[in-house]
Amino acid sequence: MANVRFSIAVSLDGFTAGPNQGEEHPLGEGGEALHEWIISLEAWRGAHGLEGGEVNASTPVVEELATGYGAVVMGRNMFGPVRGPWGDSSWRGWWGDDPPFHHPVFVLTHHPREPLELGGGTTFTFVTEGAEHALERAREAAGDRDVVIAGGASTIQQYLAAGDVDVMQLSVVPVLLGGGVRLLDRLGDPPPRLEQVAAIEAPGVTHLRYRVLR
Amino acid sequence: MANVRFSIAVSLDGFTAGPNQGEEHPLGEGGEALHEWIISLEAWRGAHGLEGGEVNASTPVVEELATGYGAVVMGRNMFGPVRGPWGDSSWRGWWGDDPPFHHPVFVLTHHPREPLELGGGTTFTFVTEGAEHALERAREAAGDRDVVIAGGASTIQQYLAAGDVDVMQLSVVPVLLGGGVRLLDRLGDPPPRLEQVAAIEAPGVTHLRYRVLR
Repeated sequence: MANVRFSIAVSLDGFTAGPNQGEEHPLGEGGEALHEWIISLEAWRGAHGLEGGEVNASTPVVEELATGYGAVVMGRNMFGPVRGPWGDSSWRGWWGDDPPFHHPVFVLTHHPREPLELGGGTTFTFVTEGAEHALERAREAAGDRDVVIAGGASTIQQYLAAGDVDVMQLSVVPVLLGGGVRLLDRLGDPPPRLEQVAAIEAPGVTHLRYRVLR
Repeated sequence: MANVRFSIAVSLDGFTAGPNQGEEHPLGEGGEALHEWIISLEAWRGAHGLEGGEVNASTPVVEELATGYGAVVMGRNMFGPVRGPWGDSSWRGWWGDDPPFHHPVFVLTHHPREPLELGGGTTFTFVTEGAEHALERAREAAGDRDVVIAGGASTIQQYLAAGDVDVMQLSVVPVLLGGGVRLLDRLGDPPPRLEQVAAIEAPGVTHLRYRVLR
């Protein structure tokens, strides 16, 4: 049975980015600390064309996330910093010519744009008909494989509140950001009910996995 | 080396009590769910005069917390619901004649009151000279043993922001409360820096332990 799932790094105080996000601090002040554990991994570096790196208890967690899915949904802010209409459409995402998705990616936007086919199986399709429609198209594209909600936080919130998420993983980093973009907020009333699936301790991070109950 | 430490149950969205706390919901709406894992333990039930209960991966965690300390600090709201002057001083805490502390307990209050000596080694001393003074007295009473900051959330925040805490444990319960009393808030700028010490997966809870760096 295919799942809709997401995995995201959060600070211990619940933020996916630090305060004062902007050009100077794309991840907010201190937000880089959320990703140090993954950037240090050989498994992540290899997938992003970088050499070296560590193998530790996070390695199987990251490898598992990279398999078993057939489509991705992401918010426009995760795709890029362009706001409003797409203009000359020169922005092709943050990831270069061979993005690490290798599957259809559906980008939520209010502004139509032609699909963008990049290398390695990644196609960005721009969906203007809303989050539920984007998820529906992703489910179709994924077939019997999972759909990954890639982010950012507000896109994840939207799908969590709508009851669309089956499995979620928070990679809790031992840092307090004191402010920023809070992940688990605006989740509806009552909020979704959870079942703890696993907790995996690794260097500089603990991965908490939950199933969202129906 | 003696530590100042605290341990508290939190929802995955970071609350130590649910929304709309009051007489009808002393732990806030849904807040009881934060304590189910501990109330089910034989180790906890025995310490509170109750029979039966489970033994599981939380047992050594709870047993370890119950040893090695020599004094306790708590906020007035944790001691009881009385507000303003103590009046006839008939309120003797929530815990009956044999509270589970077995050590000197220093209660933060603005209103003087004579010390209260109960059974099993628990003495409540009411401190009107502020949080730092209460901690100083607790350190003296504890000698080479730890000082436990028992709660509630605002008392813990105060000591965390002041840089007084050495070790903290969050028992993360797989529940979303959607609102209530947030623990990791108002921690100063910059907030304290942490080092991950351990993550212990147990039925219905994951215990995350951190050292606060100086």
